[in-house]
Amino acid sequence: MANSFTRISLVGKTEDPRVGDTMVALVDYLIEHDIEVRVDDRVSLDFPEAVQKLPQTALVEGCELLVAIGGDGTMLYAAQLVFEENIPLLGINRGRLGFLTDVSPDEMKEVFDDVLDGNYRRESRMLLEARLVSGGAMKARSIALNDAVVQRWQTGRILDFETLVNGDYVNTHGGDGIIVATATGSTAYALSGGGPIIHPELDAMVLVPICPHTLSDRPVVIRADSLVEVKLPPDPENRAQVTCDGRLLGEMTSEDRLLIRAAEQRVTMIHPPHHDYYKILRSKLHWGRSGHRRRHD
Amino acid sequence: MANSFTRISLVGKTEDPRVGDTMVALVDYLIEHDIEVRVDDRVSLDFPEAVQKLPQTALVEGCELLVAIGGDGTMLYAAQLVFEENIPLLGINRGRLGFLTDVSPDEMKEVFDDVLDGNYRRESRMLLEARLVSGGAMKARSIALNDAVVQRWQTGRILDFETLVNGDYVNTHGGDGIIVATATGSTAYALSGGGPIIHPELDAMVLVPICPHTLSDRPVVIRADSLVEVKLPPDPENRAQVTCDGRLLGEMTSEDRLLIRAAEQRVTMIHPPHHDYYKILRSKLHWGRSGHRRRHD
Amino acid sequence: MANSFTRISLVGKTEDPRVGDTMVALVDYLIEHDIEVRVDDRVSLDFPEAVQKLPQTALVEGCELLVAIGGDGTMLYAAQLVFEENIPLLGINRGRLGFLTDVSPDEMKEVFDDVLDGNYRRESRMLLEARLVSGGAMKARSIALNDAVVQRWQTGRILDFETLVNGDYVNTHGGDGIIVATATGSTAYALSGGGPIIHPELDAMVLVPICPHTLSDRPVVIRADSLVEVKLPPDPENRAQVTCDGRLLGEMTSEDRLLIRAAEQRVTMIHPPHHDYYKILRSKLHWGRSGHRRRHD
Amino acid sequence: MANSFTRISLVGKTEDPRVGDTMVALVDYLIEHDIEVRVDDRVSLDFPEAVQKLPQTALVEGCELLVAIGGDGTMLYAAQLVFEENIPLLGINRGRLGFLTDVSPDEMKEVFDDVLDGNYRRESRMLLEARLVSGGAMKARSIALNDAVVQRWQTGRILDFETLVNGDYVNTHGGDGIIVATATGSTAYALSGGGPIIHPELDAMVLVPICPHTLSDRPVVIRADSLVEVKLPPDPENRAQVTCDGRLLGEMTSEDRLLIRAAEQRVTMIHPPHHDYYKILRSKLHWGRSGHRRRHD
Repeated sequence: MANSFTRISLVGKTEDPRVGDTMVALVDYLIEHDIEVRVDDRVSLDFPEAVQKLPQTALVEGCELLVAIGGDGTMLYAAQLVFEENIPLLGINRGRLGFLTDVSPDEMKEVFDDVLDGNYRRESRMLLEARLVSGGAMKARSIALNDAVVQRWQTGRILDFETLVNGDYVNTHGGDGIIVATATGSTAYALSGGGPIIHPELDAMVLVPICPHTLSDRPVVIRADSLVEVKLPPDPENRAQVTCDGRLLGEMTSEDRLLIRAAEQRVTMIHPPHHDYYKILRSKLHWGRSGHRRRHD
Repeated sequence: MANSFTRISLVGKTEDPRVGDTMVALVDYLIEHDIEVRVDDRVSLDFPEAVQKLPQTALVEGCELLVAIGGDGTMLYAAQLVFEENIPLLGINRGRLGFLTDVSPDEMKEVFDDVLDGNYRRESRMLLEARLVSGGAMKARSIALNDAVVQRWQTGRILDFETLVNGDYVNTHGGDGIIVATATGSTAYALSGGGPIIHPELDAMVLVPICPHTLSDRPVVIRADSLVEVKLPPDPENRAQVTCDGRLLGEMTSEDRLLIRAAEQRVTMIHPPHHDYYKILRSKLHWGRSGHRRRHD
Repeated sequence: MANSFTRISLVGKTEDPRVGDTMVALVDYLIEHDIEVRVDDRVSLDFPEAVQKLPQTALVEGCELLVAIGGDGTMLYAAQLVFEENIPLLGINRGRLGFLTDVSPDEMKEVFDDVLDGNYRRESRMLLEARLVSGGAMKARSIALNDAVVQRWQTGRILDFETLVNGDYVNTHGGDGIIVATATGSTAYALSGGGPIIHPELDAMVLVPICPHTLSDRPVVIRADSLVEVKLPPDPENRAQVTCDGRLLGEMTSEDRLLIRAAEQRVTMIHPPHHDYYKILRSKLHWGRSGHRRRHD
Repeated sequence: MANSFTRISLVGKTEDPRVGDTMVALVDYLIEHDIEVRVDDRVSLDFPEAVQKLPQTALVEGCELLVAIGGDGTMLYAAQLVFEENIPLLGINRGRLGFLTDVSPDEMKEVFDDVLDGNYRRESRMLLEARLVSGGAMKARSIALNDAVVQRWQTGRILDFETLVNGDYVNTHGGDGIIVATATGSTAYALSGGGPIIHPELDAMVLVPICPHTLSDRPVVIRADSLVEVKLPPDPENRAQVTCDGRLLGEMTSEDRLLIRAAEQRVTMIHPPHHDYYKILRSKLHWGRSGHRRRHD
């Protein structure tokens, strides 16, 4: 029977030996199954001759599946590589499961037996597009799978900023900044900031103020088709930094506006057939019956 | 020009003189504008002869608009009256604005000038349907605009309970209980429990554990078309109470299952043309620049 | 060498076989070491003849150490037995460590080798005294190691209540109620309600509003020598329940006042020499490097 | 009758006309009452000839009271001027009350009538001393009335850090950083980070993790005589910034240790006789009966 994917690229921080070992094992497996395998030419591991080493820019060209090996950070990096061409993405964790890398090295071969047989689940995840605009000109633009974050630039000072949704004024906030997250990002930085968990099947965004000055300045969940705008009031000392999935997009002053909306592109994730979102939540968040409070036993 | 609504019913706890005064003034205004006005026959105020006094059950029959005067509690009561017939609902506050009663007595006449002229906004809000099921039989059923709540029944003891969404096991929780809220209810009890604000245009539900035993047991926002199930593990001391919008639905034991999903019916709310959701949030939550923290001025 | 303790009583819910097995093993160990051992006469386990079975009321009389086997709930029960006579208390957990039961069954014998040798740490923990007063008369009074809790009695309704500290008006709260906790109780229900962890060496109380109506109604930590008063405003539907360490103290109406202060008595806890409060916190709260958020790996 | 204070210095950001106007009015009042008045020689306002203009360093020398006019930030600045000599400090707010500046311009003259008559309350507030130490050498040292804060330096990356209290290992945290606050600082940044309010009469410190990676990594309140140590694990990208009351103390790498403890010096604050801590809390935090949740009215 034909394989579901015939050309597969692999990425991962192979400086980490756990990632390197997993990549070597996966390459062997894939070669055995007659898959055309490509890796980043900066990877210094020894691979069978059949493996193509390509520069990062060429890695996804003509490829049918990108496998990211590592933590959720590697997955965020991989999402940047695949989103334009909508190449599906599969994540293998280095060790414990991640929110995005839901295949463990132990079960990797069985999962690939299934995946190559066509036995897998496809899931489409929303991306944010963040644009930093000054006057009429766009200073910077990026895509984010998790979040776009505006944060104060000098540590000692409160950042004042305004938010608008679809042109409607929401609030003037004071605090450390704001996280605009997707459902995917709701379990990342936004959760640390007090935001809710948003099920990935719900297309929504959440605005999470960071350490807000006003205690009632709570997370707001809005429709995925909203346009979010962040502005800084005129004050030369009021400067912020904007990051997308943790990568710097640029500095922001009161001259600039940050515009965030759903990107046109989405990311397709490939999950094993037994993928269970709530099981990952339970594992990552240490849910279960073993909490701190047992009063009557 | 013809009025947009020709038959209007009014409800409110007229024992509160602020409610009574507003109702008398509104009745006068409506009679003057040739509206057929109906009020609950238990109201002991003096009204012009033209006003029909009807038993509560007949109040909404053939009526085109129900006006609720009071707080958000009155609005929850009114929602129970109108949802089956989908009669539109307009809320007038007793004093300060409420989340649902977004017309103040001061501006009431101008708002009605607009509303009778057809100058208003219609908004459709989701309702929950909660069913308490024992074996195959339904013990109780209710509709909720804000929330369905499962809560421990004896104060000293932790309640253990399981949640499922669309049949998938989510978690075994320990704590005081759980709130399942609509976007409308997200600013009510769910907000006190640590849940996010959900914009009413986003059809979603939120599960908010109350004082959870495990600190990572955080609110989860899910799609509005989900089926939520709450169960209690077998333990004779593990008893809970279920309420819908604060009204008792019934007691719950490990023999029972609580099933919550979007109701088929929705509630249509009538807002003044200048209705601004974020403005109400800012007012109710004391948002603005006057928070607790001002470190560098 | 003489043993540090020569007369030791044991308590625990021996219906739980893990508790029963531990108690049997501990009894054997203690008899072997010539300790006079006493257990509750309701315990239905077979013990060597040397073991005295006494009614609960006589269990602590003349005893030098009370060992509680079970969870933190058993420890709360044991605290009630020992506080009047200030008999030291040592807790053995059924399985995993508890906040108060910091000896595991596995290490029990080594710990007792140390303890009987005088190699242990004594720690004095504050108790609360809660008095429910109506007019001039005291309706009920109790001691609590963890917390005194005022909670609404009917689930659907907000409880309104006032707090005073040392006669100074603090706030009029609306919500589900309030927890007044010691440092010991700060890791129990108070933590679920959003309160801080208070190190047991700091003599302090914390007032934690439960699901407060006002989002800025946050926990307040006060001096241990404060007098806390809780009152309900006159409203016949405003009724509350008061519990101490989860045991019902009584119902409360607007006629009553609840007065909480540090009790004259304290509880002496015996810890193994290697006792480490932060290690217990780390274990119970799943602290460590395995949280939900790893963005850049 | 002799005045309680005969030599008074004034500070404030007089660029703000509300501050300038208040200062001019207060100077006139004090001159009239035969007080020797001193102001910073950088203040460009016109004062009566009797007013001494001195460089900042000489401002507190021989002075008996320092009056700070402005917000809480001005008060933090003033605390730096007075703590070595333990000169009492009185704060006048620019407009609304602050946590530290508890006299409003409106009531200023009446308050000074009282204060000069000896009718006032003295309160002693704890200060933190923060030392940044590298190897055996001290790189920087500062005093803080509110807080010492360790925060990540580059926005996109999680900061990993360890905390110790009195040499005992507490936790390895991941997140945005940590706030170590006094009771005074508990209502400033620490409150935004989820910390409790600590009554100023309780000598305590609180450790508040900022946006922690692990949801159970909650604020810990410890004794005021504790020594807190913060360290960064060896990782060249793991860099932090340390601030004291919002002022930069220095950068921190894994070579450094930050040591925080109660300073030897304290600050004496002068309050009007009717000073009421809870009233200030109620005002600043918008406490009262007007919260977001009113379900049954």
